[in-house]
Parts: sequence; structure tokens; C-alpha cells
Amino acid sequence: MQAQLIALDWGTSSLRAYKLGPAGCVLEQRAWAFGIMHLPSEPRVIAGVLCSDGFELAFDAACGDWLDAQPGLPVIACGMVGSAQGWSEAAYRQTPVDVASLGQALHPVRSLRGVQVHIVPGVIERVGLPNVMRGEETQVLGVLQGLGADVLIGLPGSHSKWVEVVEGCITHFDTFMTGELFAVLSKHSILGRTQQQSEKFQVAAFDRGVHVALSNDGQRGVLSTLFSARTLGLTGELAPDEQPDYLSGLLIGHELAGLPQQAKHKPIVLVGAADLCARYQRALALCGFVHVSLAQEATARGLWQLAVAAGLTQPVQEA
Amino acid sequence: MQAQLIALDWGTSSLRAYKLGPAGCVLEQRAWAFGIMHLPSEPRVIAGVLCSDGFELAFDAACGDWLDAQPGLPVIACGMVGSAQGWSEAAYRQTPVDVASLGQALHPVRSLRGVQVHIVPGVIERVGLPNVMRGEETQVLGVLQGLGADVLIGLPGSHSKWVEVVEGCITHFDTFMTGELFAVLSKHSILGRTQQQSEKFQVAAFDRGVHVALSNDGQRGVLSTLFSARTLGLTGELAPDEQPDYLSGLLIGHELAGLPQQAKHKPIVLVGAADLCARYQRALALCGFVHVSLAQEATARGLWQLAVAAGLTQPVQEA
Repeated sequence: MQAQLIALDWGTSSLRAYKLGPAGCVLEQRAWAFGIMHLPSEPRVIAGVLCSDGFELAFDAACGDWLDAQPGLPVIACGMVGSAQGWSEAAYRQTPVDVASLGQALHPVRSLRGVQVHIVPGVIERVGLPNVMRGEETQVLGVLQGLGADVLIGLPGSHSKWVEVVEGCITHFDTFMTGELFAVLSKHSILGRTQQQSEKFQVAAFDRGVHVALSNDGQRGVLSTLFSARTLGLTGELAPDEQPDYLSGLLIGHELAGLPQQAKHKPIVLVGAADLCARYQRALALCGFVHVSLAQEATARGLWQLAVAAGLTQPVQEA
Repeated sequence: MQAQLIALDWGTSSLRAYKLGPAGCVLEQRAWAFGIMHLPSEPRVIAGVLCSDGFELAFDAACGDWLDAQPGLPVIACGMVGSAQGWSEAAYRQTPVDVASLGQALHPVRSLRGVQVHIVPGVIERVGLPNVMRGEETQVLGVLQGLGADVLIGLPGSHSKWVEVVEGCITHFDTFMTGELFAVLSKHSILGRTQQQSEKFQVAAFDRGVHVALSNDGQRGVLSTLFSARTLGLTGELAPDEQPDYLSGLLIGHELAGLPQQAKHKPIVLVGAADLCARYQRALALCGFVHVSLAQEATARGLWQLAVAAGLTQPVQEA
């Protein structure tokens, strides 16, 4: 089947490439470790020129053969590739942002082989503490179809985002460094010393962590409750292989306790890695959030819609 | 002047040794990096025996010559040396604990040279989440003299302790992992990547961090506000060399926001490293705590008092 678009999800630690056909169906996909902080460095000849630029090398590795086969294919990309440390900076759009309209604001960068790569701008919120996203705006667009007019979208991860969307506009969002904190505490703090990895998900320990975050003890904040991941081990109440899931539940519980109260009765949609979304779904139920559903990871769909909006490709003609 | 007691403050990362004379005056003091996680390992002859035990080696290095000069000197020690990973485990005493009475609960361990080392037990609280201390109970005793009947003692550090003392009894305490979190985030997280060390204390950035913790944004918790240490850099509102002190103020602010409201009108005493106590004193004032004073680090004094209570040494005779 003839391809219509190359769509790149290019973040800090990975690069995913999708070859999309009619109506945005995925014909082929690939993943590389070439995030913008992990670019290749071995010089190689691209388009007849010896090249040592990491972005060019990663781009060529990810989809050079697709472009060789179909030189006119348009290319669109989202994520940290558009950051100040990325290939070329795509200026943030300020909230409130109609996500579908981001297709009119793509930032082009010309690659060595002459192909334009159209980068989706990130979103910035400047009310209160500044907040930024790059890539999540595209995921939000990808899952939006069929959802109600007022929805809260959760994107769990290293830096979890919670995005309020009203009639297709991102009106507000927050970032929680939950996933990264879990990783650095497990690897580099005293809490990691007594942890032991478990082969299975330690449900009771996870739930206990969530409940502690919601308890009176939790009111003192996560800086205080964190130490319980150690002391419950010292008192024999938490086995070494229960400690990682306890810490996970504790941190996720504190994150959810930080969401606005009125979110409890809003429709919530979770997008992201299945394992992680399952943890969040469980914790949300424990915290009293009642309308929670899961959506498939949707970056490729969002990129397709933006490319159509930008006129880079054509939506399929209905027969 | 004749020595009367050897007092050891033996924690996770360091070992401090004090030679104390009449009335507990410090005749000599030394510090070694031989915390219980960093013991020496090079075998050496001690008391005629080739020894490779890390605790014996550290003990001998710290005060072997003092004991050679005065073989009958009593020895007392506090801190992680009494933990399960220490030289010998001194069982915790449970709150409420009359700190002066800990002298009746010293745990002896016999060293290779025949000298008994009397280890001060730590304190555990089992109401709500368990909480533990080892060493801080001795500092608390050391500063208690002359304070009122109801006082809150703050011991800032890697694991800051806040200890409620009523009429000489530890009735309740909390632990905040503020210092360790600051260290691991600065060294191992994305926040460290844009930080630059400053030669001077960036007061305005520190205060801003404290204010953010107290603000409406701070209500969402530290997992959320942490990301602002990055985004305020992205928006040019925080220079790289302001980011460490901003993060410091933010974390300390969240810690203080977790203290009970009624603490605002209690006498508060800070004990610890002077630089760190100055930061806490500043943050406490910004948070509306009104009765704050500083006390000299007082472990040697606390150890002296416990040794007297245990009959290991004699209080000085008044002339």
C-alpha cells in the first residue's frame, strides 16, 4: 500500500517512526533509542555528503529507506525534537490552545536530503508557575475524538501530565515529576538500599502506599511520608520485595491528591504505557475518581490529523 | 587536664570522637569519614591480634591512642552504630521517651581491647507511620537544658527531624527526606542538568522557592512544584546559578508547610550545621513561625549527660 506520511514521535530518550497510509493507518513502525539526548555520532554519507550531525544521522537511520523508496513523502514530528536542545526550536503556543489548530503552526526544518521535517510546537501555560509540554499536545489531539466537551486527560510517565481540555482546547495542565522521582529514589537514595525487585505486582503494598498518601500522615506531604518506605521495612511491616510497589503507590497517591477536587466527577482518560496506566487506574479508583477510562496511545493518529490540517497530506476520500 | 570520658557520634557517613574532661568540657575532638557505611578495611594489629573488623579498626583509629594513654576511660557512643547494620544493635525505645532516662538503657559492646562501648538506643514512634531516630535523641538531650516545657526541636539534614518535646519527653517526631531529595535531584534528575553552582547564596531565588511552596500552586504538592525549577529556567525567570537555591527553598518550604499549624506559636529550636540552620531560620520566618532560636550542635553534651546518668563518669563537684 502506498504511504502518505512519515510521522515521528521524537522525545528525550527515544525516536518512534511511523509510515502511515490512507486515513492514517499504520503501515510500518519502528523504535530507536535515538532520543535527542542519545543521538548517533558515527559520521556517515547522507545524500552524497559526509555527515556527523546527530539529528541528520538519526533521521536517516529512522526513515531514510522510506524516503529513498518514496522521495516525496511529507514528514511531521513532535516532541523534544522541537525544543531548544532539539533539531530546531519550534516556539511554544500559549494556553488556551485549540489542539487541532496546531497544524497551522508547524515549524519546518530542512534536512540534508532536502526533505522538510514539520515540527509540531509544544504548549506553554504562563498562569501561575509556568508549565510546558512537547509531544503530549499531539497525544491529546489523537485521543480527543469521541470524548465529551470537558475532559481531564492523564498521561502518566517520568513527568506525568494532567491536561484539562474544554471543547478541543487545552485550558490548563500540570506536570508531576512522579516517574523520575521514583527512578532516582530507587536508584540513588537510601530507599533503594532495602528494596528488592518483585517478580509480580505487589498489589497490597501498592494500595497501602496510595492509602498512606491519602491519610492524615499524608497531609504532611510526600517529603515526610517517603521515609515510611524505609521505616515500614525496619519494623517488618513491608518486605524488601514489597517496597518498590509501596513507593510507587505512595508517589502516585500523592500525585492524585494534588489534582483539583472537582476532577473527581469529571470524565478522566488515561493515555500511555499499559502497565503504568493500570496502576493509575487502580489508584484513581482508591482516591474516589469515578469516571476513568483508558485510551490507546495515539501519537501517530494525532500527527496524522495535524498533517491533514496543515495540507501535508489528504484525508482519505470516502468511497 | 585528665580526661573523664570518650564520646563518639557515629553515624552513617562520619565518626566524630570527643575526649571530654571535667563537667564534660571538650579537651580534644576529631572527625573521620568512618561512618558505618564507610568503615576502614585494611587489617591491622589491635591489642596484639590481627584484626579486619571495620568497627574495631575505626574505633581504634578514632581513639586508640586516648585509651592507650588512659586505659580506664569509659566510652559512650550514639548514632547508626547502634543500628542493625551497626556494630551491635541497641533496641529502640518507644515514644514517649524521657530522653534523660536513656542513660539507663545503654547497650554495651565489648571491643577487642577489652573496653566496653556503651551505645545509646535510638527512639521509635509507632503511632501512625513508624518513625525512627538514632543520634538525634542525644542531640535533643544536649540542647534541652534551659528550654521551656513544650518545645519543637528541628534538626535539618539529609533526613530532617522535627521533635516535639514536652517536659523532657519526646512525645512525637517526624522525618522529612528533604536533604537527601535535594542531593539526588541535583545529581541525578533532569533538574540538575540546567543547574549551575553559585558562589554566593542566592537569597531571592531561595525565598521564591519558599513562597511557591506556600502558594496555591504549592497546594498540589512538591511532585508538581518541582517541575517549576526547570520551567522557570526555560522561561528565563531563573538563571542557572539561581536554580539550586530555588530548589532548596522550594523543598524546605514544602517541609515546613508539613509541620502542624499549632507549631507556629511554639518555641522552635534549630540544631545542626550553621549554614543549613540559617536557611531554615529564614524559611521559618517566611512561613510565619515566630519563636525561632538556634542552638549549638550538642551531641557531646548529650553524651556526657547520659554517661553521668549511667554512672560511667562523675559530674564535676562544685567548689
